[in-house]
Amino acid sequence: MPKPVVGKRRKEARRKLAEFGESLLEMIERGVPPRLKIPSRSTSNIVYDEKNRFYVLGPRMSMRSAANIKQVKKFAQLMCVADFAAELMESGKFATLREMYYTAEGWEAGPFADQSESDMMVEDLEAAFGIKREDLGLVPEEDGAAVFGEIVLKEDDIVIDATKAGRGGYTIPPTIDDVEFVKCRAKRVIAVETMGMYHRLLQEEAWKKFDALIVGLKGQAARATRRFLKRASEELDLPVLLFTDGDPFGFHIAMVVISGSAKLAHVNHELAVPDARFIGVTATDIVEYDLPTDKLREIDIARLKQLQKDPRYRADFWQMEIKKMLELGKKAEQQAFAKYGLAYVVNEYLPAKLKEFGV
Amino acid sequence: MPKPVVGKRRKEARRKLAEFGESLLEMIERGVPPRLKIPSRSTSNIVYDEKNRFYVLGPRMSMRSAANIKQVKKFAQLMCVADFAAELMESGKFATLREMYYTAEGWEAGPFADQSESDMMVEDLEAAFGIKREDLGLVPEEDGAAVFGEIVLKEDDIVIDATKAGRGGYTIPPTIDDVEFVKCRAKRVIAVETMGMYHRLLQEEAWKKFDALIVGLKGQAARATRRFLKRASEELDLPVLLFTDGDPFGFHIAMVVISGSAKLAHVNHELAVPDARFIGVTATDIVEYDLPTDKLREIDIARLKQLQKDPRYRADFWQMEIKKMLELGKKAEQQAFAKYGLAYVVNEYLPAKLKEFGV
Repeated sequence: MPKPVVGKRRKEARRKLAEFGESLLEMIERGVPPRLKIPSRSTSNIVYDEKNRFYVLGPRMSMRSAANIKQVKKFAQLMCVADFAAELMESGKFATLREMYYTAEGWEAGPFADQSESDMMVEDLEAAFGIKREDLGLVPEEDGAAVFGEIVLKEDDIVIDATKAGRGGYTIPPTIDDVEFVKCRAKRVIAVETMGMYHRLLQEEAWKKFDALIVGLKGQAARATRRFLKRASEELDLPVLLFTDGDPFGFHIAMVVISGSAKLAHVNHELAVPDARFIGVTATDIVEYDLPTDKLREIDIARLKQLQKDPRYRADFWQMEIKKMLELGKKAEQQAFAKYGLAYVVNEYLPAKLKEFGV
Repeated sequence: MPKPVVGKRRKEARRKLAEFGESLLEMIERGVPPRLKIPSRSTSNIVYDEKNRFYVLGPRMSMRSAANIKQVKKFAQLMCVADFAAELMESGKFATLREMYYTAEGWEAGPFADQSESDMMVEDLEAAFGIKREDLGLVPEEDGAAVFGEIVLKEDDIVIDATKAGRGGYTIPPTIDDVEFVKCRAKRVIAVETMGMYHRLLQEEAWKKFDALIVGLKGQAARATRRFLKRASEELDLPVLLFTDGDPFGFHIAMVVISGSAKLAHVNHELAVPDARFIGVTATDIVEYDLPTDKLREIDIARLKQLQKDPRYRADFWQMEIKKMLELGKKAEQQAFAKYGLAYVVNEYLPAKLKEFGV
């Protein structure tokens, strides 16, 4: 049997659920119908926080009440979800959102019509108690990114040196908050969009050359990856550098790491890395390095025009580069530097970027 | 600098390319236009080999010749690809297919119109010389599956215990043939379709309970994963058991491991694991375990009807289960066993399957 995980965060989450249970009992004893206030996650309540530089939820709350005939089933299901999470925490286990959805087949409160319903309940708990679902033992299916470089981590009793976990590197588990950073000699994090580039940086020993942890994002960063990057930024005080393709999706991948997504406004305080820097391919780079390009598709153009109006892209740098890309009508992938040889990206491009940004 | 990889397979591939180069020179010296015979990969030349139990290429060959005005550019590009691979092998490096496509921007033979053209050339070399592109140093973007259990592996000078590489397990690299199996105490391999189920089996300590290496396929198995499973089957003599969803895609995932795909007929002898056993969710299981299901979509039905005619599914077991699934009109995921609790799949379902198949 795995031993119950007693990390600070899971203890904190457990305590909050216990308090929730007690408050329900107390309401029942007082003869008041049980209820729960939950910050509203509707679009109109998602605001960009200029000070913190990420999306947060505004002040609007919605109320779930067992007295409301329309809400009573959902309220019962919410209690079942909280109970399921409490059991996970007691036993030290984790379950996927999918598993919870199937487990609900056996609940008295009744099964969910589809998984989006049960996922929503988990988000309700996250928002209501200011915790992450991972702290409740509810994890996504996917592992996070791969990491290679001079960091030593501890999972339960197992100590892992990320230079010795294999060519694939150390895999960030969904439960990254249970992992302890034991030692880190790296001085920066370079996170790259594609696994092709990740393996290129490993082969060219970029982790040595730049004293860097190399992180392979595998496209859009998973929550666990974002959490890892935030912890590297805050606990280890490392600059986080984001190297993506030069296209609107690449910009988006970087920006979600930096400023969080609107959809996850209720947990961005745990995930966003506002000090992370974009060192990916820009429209300027496309011209200056004369990179192989693809034509912008209609969807790329539409997306770029959206980004122009997005508060996260308000900085002059972004406005200028987006405008330039629209004028060029072209985009380029990070692997396009291979035009000049496989090592070019490590020998020329990255040193130039690091110098430019002084990181 | 990474040291040149001198694995047996890469040496063999290097030798074959050198012979190719010598034969070209010799033809030129004799005043004969250089040419190369390549097994045809057209559909009509892909045949199911009853004895070996996987798809192979038939006897038809096609000829590439520098004397043919239509082929001369392609022939020159093919030589550039071979040269690029030779350089990779000399320097002990690897490149992604994407990187090679971009590198070709600088070739005298001219760049490719798109990546499918350059990928095709790599398949030409694979087919012509009976080698895998990984042996040529040309690797896919993606890593392979995750492995957890009592196996010790060696990559270059680094020894990795797959129970100590982290909760995510050991990641199968694209270059799995360079990895040495040092020690293995496991007695079987259980490969599962989803990472949700992979982490479930790890948490329930299925690797101890069943003396098994647990492999998380991440859906359709990557070439490196298939190669790992084949090596586990042949070198370690382990039964390979495939636990997938109970739907046509799950059947397909298992069957590609077992019998290979038609598209990769020219390398199936290196990838197919004909002795692997399907222990995934069947139509019979759906009924017997009263599993939560989804309705078959039209595309599922069409796919199942294709499988009925596919030679790889000729066995009574498959014919019966496919028919039954069509009659039921339902499919079920492997995580659906969570209906009976998170540990049910390890405590009940898998032991029953292992007993049924005597593995």
